[in-house]
Amino acid sequence: MGEFDFITWLRKQTPAWPRVPVGPGDDCAVIEPTPGPPCLVTTDMVLEGRHFVLAEHGPRRVGRKAMAVNLSDIAAMGGKPVAAFVSVGLPQGNRAAIAEDLYLGMREVADAFATAIAGGDTNTWTGGLAVCVTLIGAPGPQGPILRRGARPGDWLFVTGPLGGSLLGKHLDFTPRVEEALELQEHVALHAMIDISDGLSADVYHICAESGCGAVLFADKVPIADAARGLNDGESPLEHALSDGEDFELAFAVDPAEGERLLKSQPIVGTTLAHVGVFVAEPALILEERGKRRRIEPRGFVHSFE
Amino acid sequence: MGEFDFITWLRKQTPAWPRVPVGPGDDCAVIEPTPGPPCLVTTDMVLEGRHFVLAEHGPRRVGRKAMAVNLSDIAAMGGKPVAAFVSVGLPQGNRAAIAEDLYLGMREVADAFATAIAGGDTNTWTGGLAVCVTLIGAPGPQGPILRRGARPGDWLFVTGPLGGSLLGKHLDFTPRVEEALELQEHVALHAMIDISDGLSADVYHICAESGCGAVLFADKVPIADAARGLNDGESPLEHALSDGEDFELAFAVDPAEGERLLKSQPIVGTTLAHVGVFVAEPALILEERGKRRRIEPRGFVHSFE
Repeated sequence: MGEFDFITWLRKQTPAWPRVPVGPGDDCAVIEPTPGPPCLVTTDMVLEGRHFVLAEHGPRRVGRKAMAVNLSDIAAMGGKPVAAFVSVGLPQGNRAAIAEDLYLGMREVADAFATAIAGGDTNTWTGGLAVCVTLIGAPGPQGPILRRGARPGDWLFVTGPLGGSLLGKHLDFTPRVEEALELQEHVALHAMIDISDGLSADVYHICAESGCGAVLFADKVPIADAARGLNDGESPLEHALSDGEDFELAFAVDPAEGERLLKSQPIVGTTLAHVGVFVAEPALILEERGKRRRIEPRGFVHSFE
Repeated sequence: MGEFDFITWLRKQTPAWPRVPVGPGDDCAVIEPTPGPPCLVTTDMVLEGRHFVLAEHGPRRVGRKAMAVNLSDIAAMGGKPVAAFVSVGLPQGNRAAIAEDLYLGMREVADAFATAIAGGDTNTWTGGLAVCVTLIGAPGPQGPILRRGARPGDWLFVTGPLGGSLLGKHLDFTPRVEEALELQEHVALHAMIDISDGLSADVYHICAESGCGAVLFADKVPIADAARGLNDGESPLEHALSDGEDFELAFAVDPAEGERLLKSQPIVGTTLAHVGVFVAEPALILEERGKRRRIEPRGFVHSFE
């Protein structure tokens, strides 16, 4: 039973609630706690030994990551982050110093995106460091951008090079909040996701929610230098397709708008790459040297053993 | 460095944010993610070995508690819960069964208060069970009821008997959401808190935020049967004053309204107890057999080591 199976089970268990237009299964939930515009909510937990090595990475980078992964989920909905809530389980050792550094790391990245740390819960225990951040945001100008909105023919873009994040980017990446807001000034975003599980797995999430498939162009996928430096038997392309935690955005736009976007490259500092196209057949296909073959969505799947 | 010191430090570090009218330090934060009425947000983490013993209490009761402590914080602000977000770190063992039972326990108490479970994050690791719930709610008819609002002369009430929660109530209590909403139909609530740290400690929180003190009437504090059954050298009154996790509400009202409330007892199934009075002098005083003496706020203080 993997995390995805559990989410499937959860979604079946979750009744429709009038104040929850979008429940489990997207990058954020969309809720309407009070009458008026909805808000976006996401939560992510990072755990010692699973998502970071405390002795190696240090509490400041851990705090940074814990906040940034949530900011990335708000970005994936095209939203603006507003306020974060932080719960922490502190391990034995110099707890005051860990708590302070952790918080400073969170503040560093939260401040960069004008996000308040508005509450939390600090606990001590005998276990490892556990950090849970919940982030609340406001929808961007195009409203919440969901995973379900890609249409056959839509072009698939990514916002940056992929693969090898394990060498450092998984801790120090910049969440693509600004890019997602800027994009909305230039194109209508049909669907969007942040690449946390791996390109093929995350594009497959868009396909599954949109009821379509996608063709990925092997020679168009931008490969990060880190993916070339791993030398572990997998090709750089394989890393770019299946490594997780790059936290770039993958999004779908109308082909005419896509063509314009590719030429104009309106996001300063970012090269938007046209890496595929959505198709009607509900499958994931890799086009490499003129040949198309079906691939399985692979990525960073959390297993329950 | 205790949790309270850390919160003091956090509050000093937290700048004023326009969309966060109430930041860290109350039962919930009050935020305005979008233009319109504000919402309430609270987060609490429960940890194996610290807040529960998994082998003894079982995942279902743990799930129940994790959800209920957050509902209690919404109750303490006089609000209505709307949607919960759940992050979990699952220990080794039968993870699928733990996840499912945990979720069913959460659903049980969430359903009882019409609260959606709208999102979450499920992880596995080698550590103990860690459960973090963030709950978003809407303010009640009187708006967010803060800790800072008690005035000298106000009467102090509690919603039920106190002490000895360790014998079971800390897991199986009913959060006082309904009572807090009903109260607002009858009296103007000046300040409110839920008793999670212990009566004396939590009343002291109201005092500290309101810039006043309080006299507690020893013979008026309702003592739970569990507090009488502990036989550990502390008196039942001491347990009622300082045990944590009773999750009853303590609140301040105008004395004339208090008198009316005491007589009319408008909350079905609940005996409201008038246990003290707020005073100008910023101290906590116990009145016992006609004599008044200063006491220290005592309670369940989470210590860092």
